[in-house]
Amino acid sequence: MDLKSLSGKNARLCLSAASFAEECGFPLRGRSLLLALSGGGDSTALLAMAAALRAYADLHLYAAHFNHGIRDESVREATFVAEQCSCLEIPLISETGDTPAFASSLGIGLEEAGRRLRYGFLEQARIRSGCDVILTAHHLGDLAEDILMRLIRGASWPALGGMKAYVPDRHLLRPLLLVEKERLLRLADDCGKAGLLPEFAPGCYWAEDASNRSARYLRNRVRADLLPLFTRENPDFADNCRQMWRSARRDESLLEQSMADIPMEITADNSCSIPLKILKKQPASVRFRMYLRAISVLKCGQGKWENLEKLDNAIISGRTGKTVQFPGGITAAVQKQAVIFRG
Amino acid sequence: MDLKSLSGKNARLCLSAASFAEECGFPLRGRSLLLALSGGGDSTALLAMAAALRAYADLHLYAAHFNHGIRDESVREATFVAEQCSCLEIPLISETGDTPAFASSLGIGLEEAGRRLRYGFLEQARIRSGCDVILTAHHLGDLAEDILMRLIRGASWPALGGMKAYVPDRHLLRPLLLVEKERLLRLADDCGKAGLLPEFAPGCYWAEDASNRSARYLRNRVRADLLPLFTRENPDFADNCRQMWRSARRDESLLEQSMADIPMEITADNSCSIPLKILKKQPASVRFRMYLRAISVLKCGQGKWENLEKLDNAIISGRTGKTVQFPGGITAAVQKQAVIFRG
Repeated sequence: MDLKSLSGKNARLCLSAASFAEECGFPLRGRSLLLALSGGGDSTALLAMAAALRAYADLHLYAAHFNHGIRDESVREATFVAEQCSCLEIPLISETGDTPAFASSLGIGLEEAGRRLRYGFLEQARIRSGCDVILTAHHLGDLAEDILMRLIRGASWPALGGMKAYVPDRHLLRPLLLVEKERLLRLADDCGKAGLLPEFAPGCYWAEDASNRSARYLRNRVRADLLPLFTRENPDFADNCRQMWRSARRDESLLEQSMADIPMEITADNSCSIPLKILKKQPASVRFRMYLRAISVLKCGQGKWENLEKLDNAIISGRTGKTVQFPGGITAAVQKQAVIFRG
Repeated sequence: MDLKSLSGKNARLCLSAASFAEECGFPLRGRSLLLALSGGGDSTALLAMAAALRAYADLHLYAAHFNHGIRDESVREATFVAEQCSCLEIPLISETGDTPAFASSLGIGLEEAGRRLRYGFLEQARIRSGCDVILTAHHLGDLAEDILMRLIRGASWPALGGMKAYVPDRHLLRPLLLVEKERLLRLADDCGKAGLLPEFAPGCYWAEDASNRSARYLRNRVRADLLPLFTRENPDFADNCRQMWRSARRDESLLEQSMADIPMEITADNSCSIPLKILKKQPASVRFRMYLRAISVLKCGQGKWENLEKLDNAIISGRTGKTVQFPGGITAAVQKQAVIFRG
């Protein structure tokens, strides 16, 4: 399977995914890629596209499949992914986990437990296979859902613009993030009909994940209840999300640049200080993001905004000695030369 | 009626609204204010709060009521607003419009027609009464709805953070924008029970606007369908909207500052030029906002983002002679020294 085995339209889609990866800072040429596969439609498209680009971009392909051990169908899906990979001659690493046991031992939800186990496994598989990066099949529909979930949780801009396409420290790449799901399914279907992919069921080239429909998960409620309302009010809603994402990436680099020159000293006793002299010269927009950054360095989590305003008032009006409390036991003390965050 | 006639809690709410107005760049002291009144609960709270602050902040109060001429109850509401104003000795300017006729003559929706007529009337009433500014009773619930509507329409950041609290060129002030509706209704109810406000019905001190429930209007669908889903997933959703609004205002002033030094020449033939030399030095984030600004100077409306990317590519890669088309007949031509937008 290569680009020539696809229609012109599908081949162009593959090439545009490769350009997108490059635009995001991860040129594909010559790389070793680990494809995270579920057997679903999006994942099948990712597999087909990577296989089609293999010769053209000199890719070394590996695949990984994690069986969450939650649903009865999962064994059948694991077998199917193995079939897909053997059909395309891609080595597969797979594993079965016990998500319910992991969830209850940590006292966390099934969705979060599954996510942690899956990404833990994928990173292990990446190291074992010597791959540069893990590719996931997240697409524009996932991005739209992600934006709505971030809005629900109260994310700040530019995080509100949705998940990143390339996350270097997690070795994650989402080359299909701005592509419509329908477009991916069409490609997978075309490849299947052309005999390039195995069947899951007669005339069907992927497995539908039944957990995608369970109202137990926030993501599925967003998908089933919220997203259709937005799309009903504006059929171009997904398109808007794409634009919002691009705009968030541009603002992110502007803000990163504004913050690059502000020193933040992190000491061994889990404290973090920012010099007041430099801080006070910054616009409010940058000051608040520095506070959030200091808090996130000390502890995963978000600063409560009301307290950030209290802190900023104290800093701007020069109230030396003032201490502000944040959730999670973090305090910020305004001293003569610096503001000190303690975890 | 003054601050002393209120409970401590209600008096503090009035004072915090006054501080908020000052924070937004419109200190109330000594000003002439035109209150936009509907007879509803939010509007009744605005009226009571302004009356309570009158002596304290040396306010000169006037009121205006617009009868949209759509619903049968509107005559009864107009009479009630007149009662409220006479009870608090505030001069009232009122007018009845024919919204359906205006809507069909312009071929626009009832919601938009009502909005245009109402704001046109309010501005006329402001000029007639010699007021500095029009006060509306928009509150945190309205802000949350506004944010969702902007998300639906595809607004960009920081516009996505919701309506402004002070709009100098429209002479508009929304001093209650960050206050919960429940808090306003409680204040209105307390004032009514203390005999400071007239009754609309026995034990009820405001009129409920039946048009607020009609699914014909986008705002009402957002209120009835969308907002409850967000609040169900996160009970602090309105609070998040408040934080988002504040963050948008901070970013707005950072961006305004970044754009302040970029010259944009507007010529008589409805064209608008930006020098390339300066533009190319800007981060992408600022460049794109400059394009949007140029387009909005030429025509009310939004630039299509895909085209903005085409234009930016042409500018950055120095493709002199390239012309990009935008919806509404606007073109942008990359010339040697400048990019020229034409309407």
